[in-house]
Amino acid sequence: MREDDLLQKLQQFWGITPEIIVPNGDDTLVLKHDSDKLLLLTVDTGLENVHFTTKILSFREIGYRICAGALSDIAAMGGIPLTILVDLEVPPYLNENNIISIYQGIKELQENYHFSIGGGNIVKGSRLRLTITVLGEVEKDYYLTRSGVKNGDYIYVTGDLGRTLMFLDSIYGLLEIDKEVLKILREKFAYPEPRINLMKELKQKYRINAAIDISDGLGLDLSRMAKMSGMDIFIEGESIPLHPEVKKLDFEKKLLLLKAIQSGEEYEVAFSSPDDISHPLVTKIGHAADGTGRIIMRLEGEDKEISQMGYDHLEELNK
Amino acid sequence: MREDDLLQKLQQFWGITPEIIVPNGDDTLVLKHDSDKLLLLTVDTGLENVHFTTKILSFREIGYRICAGALSDIAAMGGIPLTILVDLEVPPYLNENNIISIYQGIKELQENYHFSIGGGNIVKGSRLRLTITVLGEVEKDYYLTRSGVKNGDYIYVTGDLGRTLMFLDSIYGLLEIDKEVLKILREKFAYPEPRINLMKELKQKYRINAAIDISDGLGLDLSRMAKMSGMDIFIEGESIPLHPEVKKLDFEKKLLLLKAIQSGEEYEVAFSSPDDISHPLVTKIGHAADGTGRIIMRLEGEDKEISQMGYDHLEELNK
Repeated sequence: MREDDLLQKLQQFWGITPEIIVPNGDDTLVLKHDSDKLLLLTVDTGLENVHFTTKILSFREIGYRICAGALSDIAAMGGIPLTILVDLEVPPYLNENNIISIYQGIKELQENYHFSIGGGNIVKGSRLRLTITVLGEVEKDYYLTRSGVKNGDYIYVTGDLGRTLMFLDSIYGLLEIDKEVLKILREKFAYPEPRINLMKELKQKYRINAAIDISDGLGLDLSRMAKMSGMDIFIEGESIPLHPEVKKLDFEKKLLLLKAIQSGEEYEVAFSSPDDISHPLVTKIGHAADGTGRIIMRLEGEDKEISQMGYDHLEELNK
Repeated sequence: MREDDLLQKLQQFWGITPEIIVPNGDDTLVLKHDSDKLLLLTVDTGLENVHFTTKILSFREIGYRICAGALSDIAAMGGIPLTILVDLEVPPYLNENNIISIYQGIKELQENYHFSIGGGNIVKGSRLRLTITVLGEVEKDYYLTRSGVKNGDYIYVTGDLGRTLMFLDSIYGLLEIDKEVLKILREKFAYPEPRINLMKELKQKYRINAAIDISDGLGLDLSRMAKMSGMDIFIEGESIPLHPEVKKLDFEKKLLLLKAIQSGEEYEVAFSSPDDISHPLVTKIGHAADGTGRIIMRLEGEDKEISQMGYDHLEELNK
């Protein structure tokens, strides 16, 4: 089974009350609650041996990374976080100091994003798991969804792509990478930046029509945005933002770009806008036109459809 | 380490924003959000082989039971649920129909409690896990916490106690119980009733000063309520509500009552009130007086301190 197909079937169970403006087919629920702001609610899970191992991340980094991932969903709606809840599954090998380190990692994000830790829940289990619930808010008349891409919009992405996947490939022994460069790749994996403040700033200066957190990779998530908007998206392969140190790696350019498109959990935001945006953290990578949800990337003069390139959480499961 | 000690240490990380009225040391966060209602936010997890197994519960029952447990935290605040998010970890042996059954179990609760399923998140893992986030609301001037017990209050508990633990004891081969009776015990385990509507009704008729969801057993959870209120609580053992079929079991009365006090995940609510409450689903079990957080149970003329009798999620973990 594919994740998107299953989620579509499950939608029969969702959204029965009039308060729900966007059910979290968008990863984040948007909810009216007699206020001039809308509420945002999202939940995200990091699982040992699925999303991380304690061999490659410290406990502090695990706390930071999983929390950043949850905040990233709020960023993609153009909102800000108010408070989070922490649900922690504790395996027998974890001690009290390890748990406090996880919380310290979460707390590192508070300085920039001003949410509170509303509380926590601890359950004894067999593996380390961290589930973060975020309650946030967004302006009533300006929240971002996946379905708002307009004909002629430019497509943008924040930050740089590919470091996460290349770091993991190196860890798994699929790539050999110089230690100093590996540090730079690791930095993005351990301390991704949720784009909350950036999206807020962009919304103030420009019209943003649609946005998505590209946690399953640019290819797959752009294709979700394109499908829900009834658009085709055309990408200029050469324009996909790579980190300078990644560009220098001894790889074919084409391979690097494909890695960047498939790299999951980058916690960057892809968005569409009719405006010409100039910002050091934002790259224009293409444009949208009426269509059927395809993602077409032009690379070395050739067009290639890349719509399904990314990480599907359920693809390997039995039917 | 003990769960309560650890949670106390973690409180240094909680509640930095002025919106937070009660951090979820009460299991449920209470939050101001420019409205005449307060928001409630809670998260609860059910884990395969910790809280249930697929041998003793169907997928539909798993969905129902875990969701009921999360709703129970809202009941203990005197609130109502607005919407829930479903975070599901799917092991390889689960198929699509199993997942839909879990959602159907959750949906069964909608008829009585009118929340919406705001959306879901699915992650591939190794065991079945269901994490339910509930967003609820409560009147600004009448929400219930653990710390409100007043000198002279009566102590009440909803429903009947003990069936959950006796059912599990029987499943684990510790007790031998007649099949027909086992069905009645199982009913409580598979389909616990979150006391949302009952607490709402009681709040309208009576003054309720404090409440707690006794998910870790009456003894341990009452002791939390007593400690946070600076009270001692005196229980008349004989008055603890047992199901009629449980009373008939061939056990010493004392043993039955101790089982009832230790039985976790009953999803009943214990609360304190100065009023004489008469309700078929509510039992007066004792009273409170100024003190230090002890729970003293009178049984066959003898007083016994039972403050720590219950389920501690972390007790077996290493330090």
